[in-house]
Amino acid sequence: MQVCFFKLCPVIPLEQALTAIKDAIKKTYGKKGEEMIRMNMAAVDAATSRVFEVPLAGKTADGQPMPPPVSEKAPAFVRDFIAPILVGCGDDLPVSAMPKDGTFPTDTARWEKRNIALEIPVWEPQVCIQCCKCTMVCPHASIRAKVFDPAKANGNQPASFKSADPKNKEWAGLKFVLQVAAEDCTGCGLCTQVCPAKSKSEAKLKAINMRPQLPLLEAERTNWDYFLSLPEFDRARLKITTIREQQLQRPLFEFSGSCAGCGETPYVKLLSQLFGDRLLIANATGCSSIYGGNLPTTPYAKDLAGRGPTWNNSLFEDNAEFGLGIRLALDQQIVQAGELLRRLSSSLSDQLVTALLGAEQKDEAGIAAQRERVAELKRKLAGVEGADAKSLLAIADVLVRKSVWILGGDGWAYDIGYGGLDHVFSVGRDVNILVLDTEVYSNTGGQMSKSTPRGAVAKFAAAGKPARKKDLGLMAMNYGNVYVASVAMGAKDDHALRSFVEAEAYRGPSLILAYSHCIAHGIDMGHGLQNQKMAVDSGHWLLYRYDPTKAGSGENPLKVDSAPPKTPLEEFMMMENRFKVLTRAKPEVAKRLFQDAQMDAQYRRKLYEHLSKQEG
Amino acid sequence: MQVCFFKLCPVIPLEQALTAIKDAIKKTYGKKGEEMIRMNMAAVDAATSRVFEVPLAGKTADGQPMPPPVSEKAPAFVRDFIAPILVGCGDDLPVSAMPKDGTFPTDTARWEKRNIALEIPVWEPQVCIQCCKCTMVCPHASIRAKVFDPAKANGNQPASFKSADPKNKEWAGLKFVLQVAAEDCTGCGLCTQVCPAKSKSEAKLKAINMRPQLPLLEAERTNWDYFLSLPEFDRARLKITTIREQQLQRPLFEFSGSCAGCGETPYVKLLSQLFGDRLLIANATGCSSIYGGNLPTTPYAKDLAGRGPTWNNSLFEDNAEFGLGIRLALDQQIVQAGELLRRLSSSLSDQLVTALLGAEQKDEAGIAAQRERVAELKRKLAGVEGADAKSLLAIADVLVRKSVWILGGDGWAYDIGYGGLDHVFSVGRDVNILVLDTEVYSNTGGQMSKSTPRGAVAKFAAAGKPARKKDLGLMAMNYGNVYVASVAMGAKDDHALRSFVEAEAYRGPSLILAYSHCIAHGIDMGHGLQNQKMAVDSGHWLLYRYDPTKAGSGENPLKVDSAPPKTPLEEFMMMENRFKVLTRAKPEVAKRLFQDAQMDAQYRRKLYEHLSKQEG
Repeated sequence: MQVCFFKLCPVIPLEQALTAIKDAIKKTYGKKGEEMIRMNMAAVDAATSRVFEVPLAGKTADGQPMPPPVSEKAPAFVRDFIAPILVGCGDDLPVSAMPKDGTFPTDTARWEKRNIALEIPVWEPQVCIQCCKCTMVCPHASIRAKVFDPAKANGNQPASFKSADPKNKEWAGLKFVLQVAAEDCTGCGLCTQVCPAKSKSEAKLKAINMRPQLPLLEAERTNWDYFLSLPEFDRARLKITTIREQQLQRPLFEFSGSCAGCGETPYVKLLSQLFGDRLLIANATGCSSIYGGNLPTTPYAKDLAGRGPTWNNSLFEDNAEFGLGIRLALDQQIVQAGELLRRLSSSLSDQLVTALLGAEQKDEAGIAAQRERVAELKRKLAGVEGADAKSLLAIADVLVRKSVWILGGDGWAYDIGYGGLDHVFSVGRDVNILVLDTEVYSNTGGQMSKSTPRGAVAKFAAAGKPARKKDLGLMAMNYGNVYVASVAMGAKDDHALRSFVEAEAYRGPSLILAYSHCIAHGIDMGHGLQNQKMAVDSGHWLLYRYDPTKAGSGENPLKVDSAPPKTPLEEFMMMENRFKVLTRAKPEVAKRLFQDAQMDAQYRRKLYEHLSKQEG
Repeated sequence: MQVCFFKLCPVIPLEQALTAIKDAIKKTYGKKGEEMIRMNMAAVDAATSRVFEVPLAGKTADGQPMPPPVSEKAPAFVRDFIAPILVGCGDDLPVSAMPKDGTFPTDTARWEKRNIALEIPVWEPQVCIQCCKCTMVCPHASIRAKVFDPAKANGNQPASFKSADPKNKEWAGLKFVLQVAAEDCTGCGLCTQVCPAKSKSEAKLKAINMRPQLPLLEAERTNWDYFLSLPEFDRARLKITTIREQQLQRPLFEFSGSCAGCGETPYVKLLSQLFGDRLLIANATGCSSIYGGNLPTTPYAKDLAGRGPTWNNSLFEDNAEFGLGIRLALDQQIVQAGELLRRLSSSLSDQLVTALLGAEQKDEAGIAAQRERVAELKRKLAGVEGADAKSLLAIADVLVRKSVWILGGDGWAYDIGYGGLDHVFSVGRDVNILVLDTEVYSNTGGQMSKSTPRGAVAKFAAAGKPARKKDLGLMAMNYGNVYVASVAMGAKDDHALRSFVEAEAYRGPSLILAYSHCIAHGIDMGHGLQNQKMAVDSGHWLLYRYDPTKAGSGENPLKVDSAPPKTPLEEFMMMENRFKVLTRAKPEVAKRLFQDAQMDAQYRRKLYEHLSKQEG
């Protein structure tokens, strides 16, 4: 744009401007290597030759109505409050339009149709093996799977709507569909990258392939609406440790404002699928608080019954304590509800009270059964007089097992909020902690955190971080009562899924360290999953699970889940600019730090293997 | 006193008062067991029968001058500023009397003669083996050893002054003396408890024995002054890893206001002996900040050259960062001094500059040599013109290696200041961290910390702490670049000494976890060292050292220094009321928690042994 400006407005001679711009490029990107400079120079040259006039030929914008910022079908709050902010008129809103109790409605991001993808994935049903890896890795929940009974579908199926017979024999007679939200997709291409299914007849054709959005827009918009109208698969009948089944759970985190190809949001989305209808989130400040609750829209959504995550963002430094507080309050209410139930037992039904109090709620079926009981309880309570019945009615919902998650990035978990996080480990309450580990302060612009690996270049570590990465998982394991998992969805997706399920099932503190590729790594985000895989294959990132319940039966709680490294660490490091730039800026330092990093990885692998082999 | 009051002032009938007092005793101490109640009842009964009139027989206090609060020999600041505060007239002091630069003079506690000991230790030179264990464990630095050349002593040796020929043959011709500061001793008796030397002729006679203070006061006051006048042994000629030699180092922490028998202050005193003349302390809030800097007097002292610890207390929560800041400032000044030296090299002496910059300063002799060089530098700088010379003169003292220590209790290190402490570990700078671990918030009244062991009763853990003690040492070791030692002076004094020396020598972060018996443990403080020994013998407290420098040579950095437990943990627990009370208040809970605690100890020992055996 700068080049175009100087070409159109000759405030100084163009050649002089171009020389100055190119000198600035050399100065700015010199450390990042010849290739970076070449690409920038090429952009300058291309810009000068591609400025051309668009003849308007008498066309004007007059009389063309501005399309509405949100659909007419949107709820009143979205139309009257969110839409004005979306179009930049937030200052015109009166204070009286704000939610009076301070809470902010969720499930609103789906009304903000951004249409930013140049290309979107297109499904080839006959090639697809229905593994659902694509829907799992999608950072924006904009490619979805559903299995439905065609007899229960509404009859207005659009002509371009595609479906297939399920590969899963248990679902015979139903239909499988993979549908893209064309207006919400960011076009990152992670879905096509992860797709393992290739056409046998047509070279390079996968089960999903990126195609230009514009020609598909109208049809896919209709298909998407139709897809949403199809009934959801019964959650209680899904085997949630199998991706192809679990992915039928409706995401309750959709169309966030995270980067195209974000490595964090697939984990958050997974969380929302697994536990979203009974999920409470305490979110630390950082990327996840920005894309998680960026005014005016909110990506946390609701299911058809109106259930969805309750989300809150406290301070950067106290998020663990904040989440613990949520847990303590819930525990107190559960105790109180139990006392009230026992006291009201005769007015209700002994059988119901016993069932409510004894419910194990170990799985989706158990949760669903308890929901039924609570509904019955509420019906009965309506007919009981007195203060106890009123009090119980007010808190009856806590009898359905809630899932409390404390979310944040590595800057929070390893650094600023670590003191509190450590305290939460020690207290032993049933909270789940998800660390979206990008190994750097991403949201604030790439500062080094204690998670940053040795040799990586970051702000405050311009000459490569000299110290090794803090081993947060090991420090949590020291407590003995903390479930710890280290996962990387791009390396082993079913391991990530299993860890989430185990962490939530464990009735004490759980910590998941989730490797998240990031723009701050200096990578092509469309290949982020390959980078994750390489991080694990090279030993940069370990996959493991530490399950304290195993210690009870004499088993070693620690299991290393990734294979011994197949490739030298440097091969991974050279895939990412955060490391690569150091080889250009300070080759000698890079050599030494990369060697040390290789030692770190070997030492750590050895230590974990050693620990996992301790008996009794 | 309450009983005496009711006996003397019959506002209600005495019998009624006694019944009420005894009922209150049963209520208050019921949980602490029969023995506790019996002792209180006995005190009540003894008090009623021991109230008697003291006939004054015409004596009055008139004409008896009040002794001065401090000696006339005290410096003006002590006489004019500290003394009025000591006698409760601090409010009368004008603001102008305050130190104008905000610093507060050290070396003032020695003027506050408290005379609180009923009994003081008396030395038997012919029984003594000169091991100096007594001076090492003295919490108040009020028993001291010196080896001196009688030819260089002043001639006014008091008649009652005792000395002996040194047992150490290298000191032939010199004299060994053990001297008590009768007015500063608190009478705790730790010195006599630790004394291993017994008379062969006289039963129960040790090398030191407790005797009533009053008859000894005058003579010992004179002896103490004479002792102070004797020349100090040359620090550079002491083998500091041997207690009997190291203890000749003059304590620069004396007569603090800590409890009689305190388990923390012997460590602080040791620190002041080893490194006091070049020591900078950042002190967290807690007992150590109260007895370390309790207005109006200061126990941190100075040697004959006027050198002593620089001490500061910041907030509870930021002490680690505060100490790191001191280190960073020093490092910056060292760089600056180096640059100035190089720049001024031609005006000074190339040889001197080279020697100053290359000095290793690995031991006391090296430090002494560098001090000489700095003195020479200062003399030379006085004759050099220009701003550089002035700047260098101002910071020349940083060329003598400083010792930066970050001090605090477990409440600080395990809980409130842990986030910062962890950060300091990660940064890798040369600071030393001393945690005075009483396993409970001592100064604030006995609240549970994350250091509190499973089964101990504390505030917020009235039913015994259910979770195991946080393993701070292991968490520090995870960084790989932190020297970590876990010590207990009462169990293995030379191990504690060696750990202090190694920690200071290591040019990165060092952490010493120092087991400190405490009144909060509910023990007889005079037997605190036996409790420490039992803590180690039972496996409650591990002794170990983790030295990162060993990893470089392929050795395992971790060495477990205590033998496998000899006695069941419960034997130790039943020695201390913090555990014992639980067996009375909640016997079932106690049984379970004590069993779990035994498992904790076994598991931890096994883990440490396993880690210490990892190869390569």
